[in-house]
Amino acid sequence: MALLSVLTPVLVVVLCMVVGFMLLKPRETVTPTTEKTKERTKQDFRPWVDQDLQDDTEIPGKQDDDGEWVDSHEDEDLLHVPYSPKRYPEETMLDRSQDFYNLMNQRRSVRFISPEPVPREVIDNVIRTAGTAPSGAHTEPWTFVVVSDPETKHQIRLIVEEEEEVNYRQRMGDKWVHDLAKLRTNWIKEYLDVAPYLVLIFKQTYGILPNNKKRTHYYNEISVSISCGILLAALQNVGLVTVTSTPLNCGPQLRVLLKRPTNEKLLMLLPVGYPASDATVPDLKRKPLDEIMVDI
Amino acid sequence: MALLSVLTPVLVVVLCMVVGFMLLKPRETVTPTTEKTKERTKQDFRPWVDQDLQDDTEIPGKQDDDGEWVDSHEDEDLLHVPYSPKRYPEETMLDRSQDFYNLMNQRRSVRFISPEPVPREVIDNVIRTAGTAPSGAHTEPWTFVVVSDPETKHQIRLIVEEEEEVNYRQRMGDKWVHDLAKLRTNWIKEYLDVAPYLVLIFKQTYGILPNNKKRTHYYNEISVSISCGILLAALQNVGLVTVTSTPLNCGPQLRVLLKRPTNEKLLMLLPVGYPASDATVPDLKRKPLDEIMVDI
Repeated sequence: MALLSVLTPVLVVVLCMVVGFMLLKPRETVTPTTEKTKERTKQDFRPWVDQDLQDDTEIPGKQDDDGEWVDSHEDEDLLHVPYSPKRYPEETMLDRSQDFYNLMNQRRSVRFISPEPVPREVIDNVIRTAGTAPSGAHTEPWTFVVVSDPETKHQIRLIVEEEEEVNYRQRMGDKWVHDLAKLRTNWIKEYLDVAPYLVLIFKQTYGILPNNKKRTHYYNEISVSISCGILLAALQNVGLVTVTSTPLNCGPQLRVLLKRPTNEKLLMLLPVGYPASDATVPDLKRKPLDEIMVDI
Repeated sequence: MALLSVLTPVLVVVLCMVVGFMLLKPRETVTPTTEKTKERTKQDFRPWVDQDLQDDTEIPGKQDDDGEWVDSHEDEDLLHVPYSPKRYPEETMLDRSQDFYNLMNQRRSVRFISPEPVPREVIDNVIRTAGTAPSGAHTEPWTFVVVSDPETKHQIRLIVEEEEEVNYRQRMGDKWVHDLAKLRTNWIKEYLDVAPYLVLIFKQTYGILPNNKKRTHYYNEISVSISCGILLAALQNVGLVTVTSTPLNCGPQLRVLLKRPTNEKLLMLLPVGYPASDATVPDLKRKPLDEIMVDI
């Protein structure tokens, strides 16, 4: 007890530090989504972060106590209008479905991109097409940064290669390197200099309204990924190639380089161009239909 | 000091509880991905869960200590083959990009679906097309469950409506209901009975090899979402409609109903069919190009 008595000031200091640390900690941690979801109180419940749908949608009041989370309702009482899209005869449908499958099935991730220029209007149309994707509560939470400036492309390359080399050498362990070995990929990303366009796709983790208040972007990562799927289809449709890349750890540096606001996070980086004349791809096969589809 | 002395045992107990709590806490929380990432040790580092790419890829050894995580390398030393896809003249590219944009820009989420039958071959081709999406390390981590059985569709409806009603009434709070108000959606999902097909898209959070060992599925959620984007494009291309839905909290129940294994988690549910003759959609606008694209 005497010893404890002597140690009391130390204990008080330690306790204060520990409590202080704990109070700060929750701001940095992501709420876990487990089977316990249903037991949460209404206040804690994040309906758009389901146990089956993990997402880093930012939460009202937790990230920024100064920013009141509100939503835009200009279009709340939208008129509903008749919708009658084009309808094709069954035979035409079947032909179109087969043709589109054939077109998309020829798509491959290509790491050897030609420096030849690509018409800018085509890129604009491809991005417009990506912007037709659905999104949670129609928030359209995407920003497509199209980089053609050689110096900026080179800066991007330096950032990505530096991080990738560290990833490969130190962090990933043998397993990930092993998995990628068959794709003959490594940390040299020449295509980042060579491709006429780099498309960096940012997800907006929340929106900012004209009055500077924040707007929740439900399912922003899934929405932006769907948009990327449509973008890949649009590129394939015009004969351009890309490789779907998710540059590890480079997001914050690239965000700063490209002067994007803090609500945007890098989701994907797509170099875009014609394939190089000597481009090769690994001779991968895709799963047959009966391995990806189940009928009930 | 005397007061502190008296309080010492209390402080010690509090300190022990706080420290104990902190030691237990990390097991429940998702590792935060912050600027501190680089400081992590190799052992803790999860390279596919980047600060910009939150994912619920399951981690070797954490989910199932009996299951050794290994990878399939049958195709490790794949031959690389020349790749020279079709190349179009610039004018044709521009026309194709415009036509595809016009087609995709007519796509809308439709909640009023006709019960008319749809040729099964068309659905097969649409799913085949979705299966051409890229995926992390070519893992193809998707399962498309196509439900046409009326009784199963009704069971799905009951599960979804029950959970949705609870979501709307109790959990979501005014904010989410407010956000959805403009879409006039609610917990009645008649289309789940009416649509000729329900496509339930599961992400495989890990793979299972022929020898029953597990295989890591990097970026499975992003990969499957990209695949859904291509699926939406394929549906639009044949004149079918759907509404992108992410049934909250229903994943586990629907997984069991559809007899999917535990490595699969529901990502999306798409009712598919022709639009009803009296279908309406909210008169939403999409952002113009200059609001979604940045040139550098």
